[in-house]
Amino acid sequence: MTILKSMLLAHPRPPGDHLDTLADAAEALARCEQICVVCADACLAEESVDKLRLCIQLSLECAEICGATARLVLRHSAAPASALPAQLDVCLMACQACADHCELHGTDLGHCAICADTCRECQEKCNAVLGELALAAVGSTD
Amino acid sequence: MTILKSMLLAHPRPPGDHLDTLADAAEALARCEQICVVCADACLAEESVDKLRLCIQLSLECAEICGATARLVLRHSAAPASALPAQLDVCLMACQACADHCELHGTDLGHCAICADTCRECQEKCNAVLGELALAAVGSTD
Amino acid sequence: MTILKSMLLAHPRPPGDHLDTLADAAEALARCEQICVVCADACLAEESVDKLRLCIQLSLECAEICGATARLVLRHSAAPASALPAQLDVCLMACQACADHCELHGTDLGHCAICADTCRECQEKCNAVLGELALAAVGSTD
Amino acid sequence: MTILKSMLLAHPRPPGDHLDTLADAAEALARCEQICVVCADACLAEESVDKLRLCIQLSLECAEICGATARLVLRHSAAPASALPAQLDVCLMACQACADHCELHGTDLGHCAICADTCRECQEKCNAVLGELALAAVGSTD
Repeated sequence: MTILKSMLLAHPRPPGDHLDTLADAAEALARCEQICVVCADACLAEESVDKLRLCIQLSLECAEICGATARLVLRHSAAPASALPAQLDVCLMACQACADHCELHGTDLGHCAICADTCRECQEKCNAVLGELALAAVGSTD
Repeated sequence: MTILKSMLLAHPRPPGDHLDTLADAAEALARCEQICVVCADACLAEESVDKLRLCIQLSLECAEICGATARLVLRHSAAPASALPAQLDVCLMACQACADHCELHGTDLGHCAICADTCRECQEKCNAVLGELALAAVGSTD
Repeated sequence: MTILKSMLLAHPRPPGDHLDTLADAAEALARCEQICVVCADACLAEESVDKLRLCIQLSLECAEICGATARLVLRHSAAPASALPAQLDVCLMACQACADHCELHGTDLGHCAICADTCRECQEKCNAVLGELALAAVGSTD
Repeated sequence: MTILKSMLLAHPRPPGDHLDTLADAAEALARCEQICVVCADACLAEESVDKLRLCIQLSLECAEICGATARLVLRHSAAPASALPAQLDVCLMACQACADHCELHGTDLGHCAICADTCRECQEKCNAVLGELALAAVGSTD
């Protein structure tokens, strides 16, 4: 069990069935934020920087959004009144835009290939949380 | 003209007709972020902190989201591929949840009253950007 | 009186004599964060982007540090155990590095000139807080 | 090798001998940020919240500073003009203050015990970066 899972279990209101999904998403989001920060910095240091402007913008935007989304996921206990599901949707969009664009030059630039993969994995983990939240919402109105 | 408007005008791709709306929103978002940070800190210092838990959570969440949204608004030039409109929608939700909750004890707690007002004003400014982006999108597909 | 000052006064532990200094610094830090975000975005959109790499890095770093420092300033009430003074020192360094570098091309690029001025003003306001905190520390050990 | 290390190696200016130290620190900082966010949220949900106010403040402050420091570490290539070493020092202080305070009730509150351990580990990893940067600075002036 990762430290983060132990930590969420030690919360007075632990996430129950959502433990794995939330922790996996929070970790994927933190990773994606970090990889996107490095991708922007790496693109900026490339000789072909003038062709990588949009890539840098999308990576910075994705890093920004992943970071904010991660912190919302971690404060899961506020869920009833929370903007979390909508924020996860935005994060899916930002990850997709960044991954799609990074893939365009992923064969030439190793960091863009890694960034695209990391964004895709982050999308998967965010989607899993959205799925569980939707199910839980249905369950709670039964 | 505020410094921020001069700055956006000095950008090689200035925001044109959107200058006032974007700058006003960015400033309202920064203000809302700051007021929400203080509201959470103030609630935490109140004797009745045990009744203010949700208020603190919602203020922290609103601060987080306003900060991220402000930085997206400021990088307007990435707009075509950007998650900005969806992020603005999330921000509207976070501001509304925080304002609605702060109003519940706004007569007792001055900081919650100010926080509610600031969130409402932020919603207005974000809505104005959304309106303009929607119009611009319609215009560009004519 | 700005909204932020009213807000800090409504805190159960208001900042007393430090009200103006703290609020002015928080507002200058938020402004500097925003201007630096725009400066990085503007430099990235310049034709001469390959000569502006370090400028973009320093602006992004300054924006990052100003944002974090602002949120610490706003939670002034944690001051006794806080890393605030040391964080303000870091912020002075980041603002100086960004201002010095932006000035190098401030005659050609209007956004760099505005960014340099904003960083200098932010340094002044942070220095004022540091001065007051040092005096208060002396006073409290008399 | 972690994804982050592969990413830093794919940067056009890879961190050379500092690869392991920088990547380990960035990962420890991200973990510490997340654990501190959860610790603040968990303390806020405890019955004894009125005795955990300072703990919440210190955790929020530590989370804030770890996040900003992590993003600076990841943009290592700006190092010459960077505020990174000073920011790492601030981070050491924030981690120490949070760890020391969390330990006070670590026997009662599992999340505070985990938070204290995570802050200590983060300090170690930040110290390792500081040590390497100091050595590199000495080497570069020989």
